[in-house]
Amino acid sequence: MRIEILNTGSELLLGSTANTHGAWMGQELVKLGLRVQRQVTVPDGKVIEEALAEATARADVVLVTGGLGPTSDDVTRESLAAVLGVEMIEDEAALRSLHEFFEKRNKPMVAANLKQARNLVGADILPNPNGTAPGIYAPPRLGGEPFCAVFLLPGPPRELYPMFHAEVVPRLRALGGVEVIDGVTELKFVGIGESDFHDRLDDELAAIDGLEVGYCARLGEVDLRLIGSDDAIARGRELTVAAFGDYLVSEDGSDLETTVIRELIRAGKTVTTAESCTGGLVASRLTDVPGSSEAFQRGFVTYSNEAKVEMLGVTPATLEAHGAVSEEVAAEMASGARRTSGADVAVSITGIAGPGGGSAEKPVGRVCFGIATSKGVRTYLENHPRNRLDFKRQASQRALDLVRRAVHDNQ
Amino acid sequence: MRIEILNTGSELLLGSTANTHGAWMGQELVKLGLRVQRQVTVPDGKVIEEALAEATARADVVLVTGGLGPTSDDVTRESLAAVLGVEMIEDEAALRSLHEFFEKRNKPMVAANLKQARNLVGADILPNPNGTAPGIYAPPRLGGEPFCAVFLLPGPPRELYPMFHAEVVPRLRALGGVEVIDGVTELKFVGIGESDFHDRLDDELAAIDGLEVGYCARLGEVDLRLIGSDDAIARGRELTVAAFGDYLVSEDGSDLETTVIRELIRAGKTVTTAESCTGGLVASRLTDVPGSSEAFQRGFVTYSNEAKVEMLGVTPATLEAHGAVSEEVAAEMASGARRTSGADVAVSITGIAGPGGGSAEKPVGRVCFGIATSKGVRTYLENHPRNRLDFKRQASQRALDLVRRAVHDNQ
Repeated sequence: MRIEILNTGSELLLGSTANTHGAWMGQELVKLGLRVQRQVTVPDGKVIEEALAEATARADVVLVTGGLGPTSDDVTRESLAAVLGVEMIEDEAALRSLHEFFEKRNKPMVAANLKQARNLVGADILPNPNGTAPGIYAPPRLGGEPFCAVFLLPGPPRELYPMFHAEVVPRLRALGGVEVIDGVTELKFVGIGESDFHDRLDDELAAIDGLEVGYCARLGEVDLRLIGSDDAIARGRELTVAAFGDYLVSEDGSDLETTVIRELIRAGKTVTTAESCTGGLVASRLTDVPGSSEAFQRGFVTYSNEAKVEMLGVTPATLEAHGAVSEEVAAEMASGARRTSGADVAVSITGIAGPGGGSAEKPVGRVCFGIATSKGVRTYLENHPRNRLDFKRQASQRALDLVRRAVHDNQ
Repeated sequence: MRIEILNTGSELLLGSTANTHGAWMGQELVKLGLRVQRQVTVPDGKVIEEALAEATARADVVLVTGGLGPTSDDVTRESLAAVLGVEMIEDEAALRSLHEFFEKRNKPMVAANLKQARNLVGADILPNPNGTAPGIYAPPRLGGEPFCAVFLLPGPPRELYPMFHAEVVPRLRALGGVEVIDGVTELKFVGIGESDFHDRLDDELAAIDGLEVGYCARLGEVDLRLIGSDDAIARGRELTVAAFGDYLVSEDGSDLETTVIRELIRAGKTVTTAESCTGGLVASRLTDVPGSSEAFQRGFVTYSNEAKVEMLGVTPATLEAHGAVSEEVAAEMASGARRTSGADVAVSITGIAGPGGGSAEKPVGRVCFGIATSKGVRTYLENHPRNRLDFKRQASQRALDLVRRAVHDNQ
């Protein structure tokens, strides 16, 4: 079933309102085993008719949002009638609902709202319990050709989402195209890039019959999406895990921080953070996870040298000899945090986020990590020359991954 | 100038990644006095060529994002070459940049990355200092017809945004369609919502001749965009500041954390943070600002009661009598953090982020703030019943605003 989404509304193109409908509907349709082949956003006005004509010529189902309001720039109904070449009539039930809507709220109904009760001849009105704009369902072949079903849906999410579930999903099922033929599995990796997959696995994955592979790369992580039959997915997963299992964070969509907290709780361990350049970001990400208080009780943000000495017991001599951004200081930060807090695992981060503060010897992007456990302290020196926010994100990613590995390897 | 945006990427249609590019570029183009006439999202693959052919036939400028990576599903370059009917060559400068990118990071460059150095004959390579995928600019009439300029841009925002400003904007100006006929001013407010503006100012702002008003509302903040002649903007600004000046954070696009750090440095003061429910987010936001070390030296993440007692000197009796989420504990957290750190201003946050941990007496969303200065401690009790991440963001927003107000009022 070829599905297109058409979002209408000038505000969506001005950037003042983010278009979240597209993503939301995409997600809901994936759950039904359906996929969107194209999403288009056009401003209010005449162009809606053009976009509707194109979409109905290409797709089996077109889902349209917006333009069902009472004002003059709301022309979606009329545009569809023109494209399908069918007449419009006033729908009595819709008119009754409109009157009831206003009565309930003790508000007068203005004449402009009357157009919201108009329907295409042969189409269904879709009730909208949360607003004045009813939806419309034009079944396939309503206007002869094209053979395409069209849903007109309201723009506001609190009206759209319930109507999608109550009215759209049952009709999609009735159209017969909703069968979960394909499975979807998402593997989340941290610490390797998209090109690592390409280099090691592209050919082998491509050789698996009926497997569709997609990547979504973000800073310091890659999501690998496998779509296909259960068998094809299982074979793709096996290959991937054999190559990169060490970097695999989750197979259920969980992000790194969620995985870290889950693993800590499973192991009955606690973690603490000693952050310089990340400035609290690692602690904040850990506490983004519901229930994280079971595994995380305190963190230290030690931005200055004095804070490192006073809060973590870093020795002034070490700072003097090696500088704040050094493996030696990272080691003392981690062991000091572990000792002071009583946590099982402590991770420390000290680095140069930039744009200032770099030198020839220690450039912007230099970062040292320490990880302290009952087995001792390990340190790491790395370079992540990026802009300030990306550097912080990347360093926090690495710090969380070090905790994940420490717990996983039972260090 | 007719502008279209073409976003490519299967993940955008699966709903796993929200398409924020469209909105962001729309906003940036509005600042240049330009409007997007259509935005299209298509999955990776052959359909990109079809969508490119359609867009280039309709528009004067097409901005394309995504599909410039090293893997087999990255086919945007090749699709454009096919649509314009021009050959591709390896670009030596781009190849050199790629090598440098990997050398800097001490990583081997894999063969797959080589395709990222390929360019269309006659097109410009757009340098990408933040990633491996250079952009491409195909000037109008590169392939004879259509008369359309095409920009191929990387998908990740941290690569896209800088490239848009450095490479796209100057070329749009050179194309001659960019004339900032209208001025644009953006006022950033924290602590009030879009409906406050509607209620108080909609009619008055609408009465100003030649003034276009736009809102962009985010959690706990509203950007007001005034577009028009200098005179119209000045009148609009005057009305707005008279009504809501107390909530005005910046007039130069600076976010709240940047404003707070700037004000602290200007006043020669330092700040510290004592965070429970925000878990380090306030400290992290402060350290997002370059140069923040001048005003922020340490922060405390005290998630458990023990941490509040041991790190901040909160008395067990206060915790026992009032509970961790109370104005009394917020007061002791703030004054303890101020005393221990020696900072001029301390802000504390303790609340119930949820989804667990709420009660009838103290529901999810309850949050207490403390602000300690040389003049004493003030506390605030508020309710922000939201999902966990929005709650954290909202509470951190309020905490930063309390610091801003304390410094501003010279408390």
